[in-house]
Amino acid sequence: MIKAGIVGGTGYTGVELLRLLSMHPQVDIHVITSRSEAGKPVAELFPNLSSHIDINFTSPDPAALSTCDIVFFATPNGTAMQTTRDLLEAGVRVIDLAADFRIKDVMEWQQWYGMEHQCPDLVDEAVYGLPEINRELIRNARLVANPGCYPTAVLLGFLPLIESGLVDSARLIADCKSGASGAGRTASLGNLICEVSENFKAYGVAGHRHLPEIRQGLQSVAGIPVGLTFVPHLTPMIRGIHATLYATQLEGEVNLQSIYEERYADEPCVEILKPGAHPETRSVRGSNMCRIAVHKPQQQDTIVVLSVIDNLVKGAAGQAVQNMNLMFGLDETLGIDAVALMP
Amino acid sequence: MIKAGIVGGTGYTGVELLRLLSMHPQVDIHVITSRSEAGKPVAELFPNLSSHIDINFTSPDPAALSTCDIVFFATPNGTAMQTTRDLLEAGVRVIDLAADFRIKDVMEWQQWYGMEHQCPDLVDEAVYGLPEINRELIRNARLVANPGCYPTAVLLGFLPLIESGLVDSARLIADCKSGASGAGRTASLGNLICEVSENFKAYGVAGHRHLPEIRQGLQSVAGIPVGLTFVPHLTPMIRGIHATLYATQLEGEVNLQSIYEERYADEPCVEILKPGAHPETRSVRGSNMCRIAVHKPQQQDTIVVLSVIDNLVKGAAGQAVQNMNLMFGLDETLGIDAVALMP
Amino acid sequence: MIKAGIVGGTGYTGVELLRLLSMHPQVDIHVITSRSEAGKPVAELFPNLSSHIDINFTSPDPAALSTCDIVFFATPNGTAMQTTRDLLEAGVRVIDLAADFRIKDVMEWQQWYGMEHQCPDLVDEAVYGLPEINRELIRNARLVANPGCYPTAVLLGFLPLIESGLVDSARLIADCKSGASGAGRTASLGNLICEVSENFKAYGVAGHRHLPEIRQGLQSVAGIPVGLTFVPHLTPMIRGIHATLYATQLEGEVNLQSIYEERYADEPCVEILKPGAHPETRSVRGSNMCRIAVHKPQQQDTIVVLSVIDNLVKGAAGQAVQNMNLMFGLDETLGIDAVALMP
Amino acid sequence: MIKAGIVGGTGYTGVELLRLLSMHPQVDIHVITSRSEAGKPVAELFPNLSSHIDINFTSPDPAALSTCDIVFFATPNGTAMQTTRDLLEAGVRVIDLAADFRIKDVMEWQQWYGMEHQCPDLVDEAVYGLPEINRELIRNARLVANPGCYPTAVLLGFLPLIESGLVDSARLIADCKSGASGAGRTASLGNLICEVSENFKAYGVAGHRHLPEIRQGLQSVAGIPVGLTFVPHLTPMIRGIHATLYATQLEGEVNLQSIYEERYADEPCVEILKPGAHPETRSVRGSNMCRIAVHKPQQQDTIVVLSVIDNLVKGAAGQAVQNMNLMFGLDETLGIDAVALMP
Repeated sequence: MIKAGIVGGTGYTGVELLRLLSMHPQVDIHVITSRSEAGKPVAELFPNLSSHIDINFTSPDPAALSTCDIVFFATPNGTAMQTTRDLLEAGVRVIDLAADFRIKDVMEWQQWYGMEHQCPDLVDEAVYGLPEINRELIRNARLVANPGCYPTAVLLGFLPLIESGLVDSARLIADCKSGASGAGRTASLGNLICEVSENFKAYGVAGHRHLPEIRQGLQSVAGIPVGLTFVPHLTPMIRGIHATLYATQLEGEVNLQSIYEERYADEPCVEILKPGAHPETRSVRGSNMCRIAVHKPQQQDTIVVLSVIDNLVKGAAGQAVQNMNLMFGLDETLGIDAVALMP
Repeated sequence: MIKAGIVGGTGYTGVELLRLLSMHPQVDIHVITSRSEAGKPVAELFPNLSSHIDINFTSPDPAALSTCDIVFFATPNGTAMQTTRDLLEAGVRVIDLAADFRIKDVMEWQQWYGMEHQCPDLVDEAVYGLPEINRELIRNARLVANPGCYPTAVLLGFLPLIESGLVDSARLIADCKSGASGAGRTASLGNLICEVSENFKAYGVAGHRHLPEIRQGLQSVAGIPVGLTFVPHLTPMIRGIHATLYATQLEGEVNLQSIYEERYADEPCVEILKPGAHPETRSVRGSNMCRIAVHKPQQQDTIVVLSVIDNLVKGAAGQAVQNMNLMFGLDETLGIDAVALMP
Repeated sequence: MIKAGIVGGTGYTGVELLRLLSMHPQVDIHVITSRSEAGKPVAELFPNLSSHIDINFTSPDPAALSTCDIVFFATPNGTAMQTTRDLLEAGVRVIDLAADFRIKDVMEWQQWYGMEHQCPDLVDEAVYGLPEINRELIRNARLVANPGCYPTAVLLGFLPLIESGLVDSARLIADCKSGASGAGRTASLGNLICEVSENFKAYGVAGHRHLPEIRQGLQSVAGIPVGLTFVPHLTPMIRGIHATLYATQLEGEVNLQSIYEERYADEPCVEILKPGAHPETRSVRGSNMCRIAVHKPQQQDTIVVLSVIDNLVKGAAGQAVQNMNLMFGLDETLGIDAVALMP
Repeated sequence: MIKAGIVGGTGYTGVELLRLLSMHPQVDIHVITSRSEAGKPVAELFPNLSSHIDINFTSPDPAALSTCDIVFFATPNGTAMQTTRDLLEAGVRVIDLAADFRIKDVMEWQQWYGMEHQCPDLVDEAVYGLPEINRELIRNARLVANPGCYPTAVLLGFLPLIESGLVDSARLIADCKSGASGAGRTASLGNLICEVSENFKAYGVAGHRHLPEIRQGLQSVAGIPVGLTFVPHLTPMIRGIHATLYATQLEGEVNLQSIYEERYADEPCVEILKPGAHPETRSVRGSNMCRIAVHKPQQQDTIVVLSVIDNLVKGAAGQAVQNMNLMFGLDETLGIDAVALMP
């Protein structure tokens, strides 16, 4: 059994990680820390875990965490970088579900996140945990930077186009819609049901922290700078991201459907829909799948890709477990292959 | 492996049964029938089942069903009674998720359901599939009448009070709120999102088919006629039933909390909350649990019981699997012990 | 034109009051105060008011308020009682939308609200602003205590039964369901869309502040102490209260429908539905109507009353305008007779 | 008073038209027809209209309609063209809220709508009822083709860019999100709350009937063929359209904000937000406003325009009333200037 620790398990990413790990046949949840909830039974905060998890939140304690095989950080940005080095030196593997190790260009990271990085060298070492790109690196990684939710949906949707050099990478558009759980379990006016329900809006059009992360991912594949316009929207639901991607095709005679099907033929967590289909976010609710359809409407040269994930699963906790499975040589989908809840 | 057949798997109860059975380690889904969808892959209708179920809907065929160990009817009322006798005679066990075998008084059934019953003798034989009352009978049953969703929530909530003779059973009130999935996957004006969302209403106050079912269950325990007022409401959400139950206490000095805790101490699918708690429907979303709290507000003699279930799981498909587990000598919660999806 | 002032207009009650007053043909919104938003244009905080209201929030200033004909307090409990005396002495009439002047028994108020009352004599003077009971008193009032949302729905539903002495007033039950806007525009974990949406729960079963208010209203009509069990629930929508009321009929031969129709025959803001009907909360969304249906299911002696309002209109801001209209001799429904928004 | 007739008032567009016309000070609703509901009081079908409208649905009757000053068709496509000629000849003015007269190219119309047009000459005469383009033509029109909901939001958003020749009109993208009321009040599986709620999806990516309508509108302004990719999405709410528009700027030094502000400076139903703002659909719920923000993120050459309307008001019934006001020389916003309902 893998001894797992979770730092900061009181958010939506945390409770989803607890849900998945508590049902994982090879994991023992050894310690879960929370400054604010220390001493409280986990199942008191999250009654869905009642009779599934029988431990209490504890104060963050480096000694306890060092006895784990793996530690997940489900913390705000800037937290994991404080203690990751000590854990790695103690032989613990680390997966950060926040953004501390996602951006290789530390200066750019510091601009977008507004703080100084504590361990730039670990940024170098960290593997960006998108298995569909970095599977082999993840297997051997000590430190994995778990991708953001938008980046997961957008990168998986764009990858086959960029890898094949089929489209004008100077003018990519990602129009993304997210459920409200992406904003986290923090009391804020903007996430009240009376503010979000029966409402739809864009936000962060001027610039969103996931923009440099997506751009970095696309550029690493394209090998050249890409031009990306990224517009996130808040949609009145709890879970789910729908990315609608637009790219201009450079030349005419290709079978887009085949390119997508072949690219993901062996991927256990990506499914390419039949031609003409429209994936629904609910079809992946609670599951680790990314479902993608590719369209070329009205014989024009604009390609439209539709990509859906559950932001808390493939966009966060599920992908973290997928990465853990790879790091420990387990079956990649162990514990994350449940059927989506529909309706 | 248990060879399972499903008749009429295209409704919400059907897809939920498919979700649970496809993940059940001891079940092989052998045949699933649907007149309207015959020939179509199950995963095409329900994309959440893609890569989990690889069979097609077929036309109802008695021969194919007779080769099953168990057949589930997830059909409209009046369907199961047409073919249950043949299946039983072929040695197949049957669980009807509709109402054909729930009401022992056939005349009363005929009044509420507006049709003639085809096999009153099987009504006699059928076991009402609420394990918390009839566990031993279910183990040996050939034919199980799976309880309705409202009756499950209300009976589990009232049972300890009625069994202990603590309350005036002539004046019980069940004020129940259900998500819209209880109305089924049928195109109807009343269930459009624009009609249900941002709206709350009672319905069927004059009389609802679950009234005689609940009354029968209460009377079987009380041993005397009971007076019950049952008011169902439609609440703007997909899954979940919340029953708020009112009863007048007959005498003063009892420990209600202990009575509830002791009654359900060994029940794997019922959890009694701590004093003062309020169960949330989302805490059982996708799970087979019933969570109950008992209150006695303001030192008055009115007892208030709060009882929540997922209407599609403990209120339908999950309870059917629980019954199947009992009938086949399996662990009672096998395949239905997943953590609820929250948020 | 009536010069109106609003103290604390940044909550949901405040913005609703602004919506109604800005369209009222006889009202000039003279001043609106908010400590936190002073200096900001109202339309910046509430873009729906853009091009309808052109003033800024200002810091609370007694002098400015004293120049008004009427001041509405849309503030937290305990605020209005600080400055009401000064306003009254300056000849300003006051409507408090909070609870400061609702409970005549000051000791009881202090227990439920956890603070000392600053002006018990004004509590004596204040008129409880339910026009269907106190119309004439309201016309001549200097100070009106605008009723709570639950009390409005429950009192209007129970009144005809209590006034006619038809039911056992020792055992009344009010099972109420409210949309989330009742909880106000305050950032709190419990009101996040991810906590409220797709969820249903009771709260405050042990005791809710609207209990003594409802009980007082019932007792003032009954002339004797009443026994009331009040259970509020949070339903996943923004606006609307649905009260389901239960009472035991004392004698058999009455025409309930007529009693209700006659009681409210001349009431402009109460509509009695036809026999057998079920009012929907959306049918009063944005309107000042209370719609009521009365049932007596299954020939039992339990009467069931269904009563719906928009908690922000008839349950708060609309009723305040109705009271203002009465106080200033205007047509009672002036400015609050718009059609409900449906769907 | 204008005598108004409504043909087919049982859908969501119809009830919204009834809501607006019933509060319009210069309109008398003279006749409202519905084959299916003939004889039933309007307020029975739509209880929000109770005490506001006191007439019954009647069977469609040309004679009764000919006595009106104006007839609105809130019917399925293909209905208005059957009787419009007779009405016009009787001196009645006509506004069709469906698509019969929107597309000038009758062949194209017949392809997209799959039926033969009954009166191509009237298509020539009909004025496309977008006041922000065709105000003067509308004033004198006998027959107005009321624009579709998506076209209204998209055209108003793109107009300033196209009119100024600022962008590459060969590669325009309109990523649009609509609430479910756009799909109408028809019982269909796809619009059940259990299918739409907690879900997000694109639809009609291959081709949607509003595509040729939007393209025609853009081309009429651009004077040259335009290339448009239009992707509609269904978002889990009742009302509201959010159009996110993308265009490539041709040259660098312009003040986009000023261009938008100037273009709409005198428009009573269009509001340009401050730089950096994000309009919310709820800010126009129930109102006839279109609210627009223009962005140019990250100093790239992709312009992003955000445009929101209430699909039932500015996208249908409200715009029809705006057109009627123009046709009858009334103040353009008479009866449609209510404050949006928020929250």
